[in-house]
Amino acid sequence: MSERYRRGIDIVQRLSAGSLEEFLTSRVAEIAPDFARMAIEFPFGDLYARTELDFRDREIVAIAALATLGNAGRQLRMHVAAALKLGFDKAEVVEILMQSAVYGGFPAALNALADCHDLLAEGDSVACRRA
Amino acid sequence: MSERYRRGIDIVQRLSAGSLEEFLTSRVAEIAPDFARMAIEFPFGDLYARTELDFRDREIVAIAALATLGNAGRQLRMHVAAALKLGFDKAEVVEILMQSAVYGGFPAALNALADCHDLLAEGDSVACRRA
Amino acid sequence: MSERYRRGIDIVQRLSAGSLEEFLTSRVAEIAPDFARMAIEFPFGDLYARTELDFRDREIVAIAALATLGNAGRQLRMHVAAALKLGFDKAEVVEILMQSAVYGGFPAALNALADCHDLLAEGDSVACRRA
Amino acid sequence: MSERYRRGIDIVQRLSAGSLEEFLTSRVAEIAPDFARMAIEFPFGDLYARTELDFRDREIVAIAALATLGNAGRQLRMHVAAALKLGFDKAEVVEILMQSAVYGGFPAALNALADCHDLLAEGDSVACRRA
Amino acid sequence: MSERYRRGIDIVQRLSAGSLEEFLTSRVAEIAPDFARMAIEFPFGDLYARTELDFRDREIVAIAALATLGNAGRQLRMHVAAALKLGFDKAEVVEILMQSAVYGGFPAALNALADCHDLLAEGDSVACRRA
Amino acid sequence: MSERYRRGIDIVQRLSAGSLEEFLTSRVAEIAPDFARMAIEFPFGDLYARTELDFRDREIVAIAALATLGNAGRQLRMHVAAALKLGFDKAEVVEILMQSAVYGGFPAALNALADCHDLLAEGDSVACRRA
Repeated sequence: MSERYRRGIDIVQRLSAGSLEEFLTSRVAEIAPDFARMAIEFPFGDLYARTELDFRDREIVAIAALATLGNAGRQLRMHVAAALKLGFDKAEVVEILMQSAVYGGFPAALNALADCHDLLAEGDSVACRRA
Repeated sequence: MSERYRRGIDIVQRLSAGSLEEFLTSRVAEIAPDFARMAIEFPFGDLYARTELDFRDREIVAIAALATLGNAGRQLRMHVAAALKLGFDKAEVVEILMQSAVYGGFPAALNALADCHDLLAEGDSVACRRA
Repeated sequence: MSERYRRGIDIVQRLSAGSLEEFLTSRVAEIAPDFARMAIEFPFGDLYARTELDFRDREIVAIAALATLGNAGRQLRMHVAAALKLGFDKAEVVEILMQSAVYGGFPAALNALADCHDLLAEGDSVACRRA
Repeated sequence: MSERYRRGIDIVQRLSAGSLEEFLTSRVAEIAPDFARMAIEFPFGDLYARTELDFRDREIVAIAALATLGNAGRQLRMHVAAALKLGFDKAEVVEILMQSAVYGGFPAALNALADCHDLLAEGDSVACRRA
Repeated sequence: MSERYRRGIDIVQRLSAGSLEEFLTSRVAEIAPDFARMAIEFPFGDLYARTELDFRDREIVAIAALATLGNAGRQLRMHVAAALKLGFDKAEVVEILMQSAVYGGFPAALNALADCHDLLAEGDSVACRRA
Repeated sequence: MSERYRRGIDIVQRLSAGSLEEFLTSRVAEIAPDFARMAIEFPFGDLYARTELDFRDREIVAIAALATLGNAGRQLRMHVAAALKLGFDKAEVVEILMQSAVYGGFPAALNALADCHDLLAEGDSVACRRA
């Protein structure tokens, strides 16, 4: 186990309630274990581990980028969950998704909001999936 | 309620059988009511309300753009429904989706056609969802 | 020379003042003559030749799709020139580009407008290139 | 039936176990029969039929391009199935999808891997659909 | 002049040294004055004016989204200039662009860095344009 | 200097006549030296170094993906140069770019061909830049 992986997996665990790690160590890992490892090493072990930006700023980067892409609902939900765990208000996350409409268009932003509805709704949210 | 919103909601109601308004005032509106409002004000209250293009031309713009994006099936179906309500032939809408393959590629166009299958099939179509 | 190519090149000539044909028969044609031929046969010989949509509607499709892509300034300018030749008002073309911001975002629409500035400015426009 | 179509459908049949042809002659064909025909004529009858690249290289092109798009899971699965039928190792296909992360980002590559999980898992895979 | 526009233009002036306003009131404004107005009203007058996110967070959203798009160098440079004026370290902006490679791929991130080279290089940077 | 970097830079040197290394060690490296290093480590040191695909197949992946993106002319030219150095015929590279039109649309493919005109033209080609 590389130092980069160890560092990455540690960050992933601090960020998420386990869902990200779960994903990276299950379905994708089953057919592409080396890529699941790289998907922890490069984004988390290399980038998130750098101190130029704190985790709060990095989650803004991730959420804004993923909402703009418009076809990464799975990853978007993971990072929204991470952001909420880090202490973001739901209203802040909603605002990031709203602003992404300026750059990526309304459909991408509307779909991002719908994708994360259950995570961002008030009250309890048992599960989050596409409307 | 702003004049822009009033103007937008009036256009949305004329264009759709209610499905667009339904979407904009429900799931997204639940977590982002201000964005649901903006998604009526800017596209419909500001742009559709302008007389430089009529609704017919505007629906061609919407359908061509959404088919090219390739990941906005939900919005595409709404605008296809609006176009049919405005009097487009199904064959005209199919043709717009076909031509979008030139600019956005065959997969985007094939998926757009599959996404709107139930709206564009002959005979009645009770519901439209992804194959 | 296939019938599809003959039909396509005839349509291209009616649509453009020559610039599209020029492009398709020069730089790309030099290294990929078969593709230059296909780029006339499929979009124009196959699709534009169909009567389900008239040329006016087809230019709306092309301009909306190309503006949404955000990285096809060259093709966008050709179709804007074709639209103007077909009788579109400059204000109508501007409006199509404006509406594309809803679907593809403001940067794509702003760049589309800047890319076509010289074609859409009042007065004479000798040349059109990126700002 | 055009010569291009005949040539294309012959290639599609050699490449796939039928799933591609099935798709192109069913749901899309129902509402857009001419486009289903074109989707065989141009990609397969025109391009795949050319001898500048063999089918093996063409499937690498298709898989890399579709994984990079990030929203063409349906087409991606068809071409992955075709590649396996042509004799690609599962490990080679996984590697193509992994490398696509460099150009199209990690979310697109992760989703491509998840989309094709059942085709690429060891053992038998009866069906393949999104996780 | 609408209240939204007044509010937006005030924010634009505080954010930029003028370059954004310059752009929005010149080339695009010449052919599409209403769109130049809307491009201030909606992003700045509506969204930036909301207090759910501060300007610092909003610039992270803008830069991450624009770098991910990969074809909005002009807007990216404006927002990088705004971020530096707001007090971001060059190293922080570089880090946002680096992280965007995870979501949008290495080419988009490399081009974003090259596009903003002159703004992010140490020492003085008189002008910034594509390498 | 990490082992991954050493391995990556060695591969880059074998693949290119220096242009890729030049890029990665100059303009981008000036403002983001760590990213220039990562852009060698991950794509080349990690992925290209794996033996599941040979360099020939990997260049097909790179060229197909970059042509589909439509806004990565700089990286596309580097990989086209690498492919030619590896022994690809110009006609093979042209064919990859042609086939990418199926997935990413005609404008992306036409621009890819125009971007690489000088590399793919018969006779000598001293330099290659956008038309």
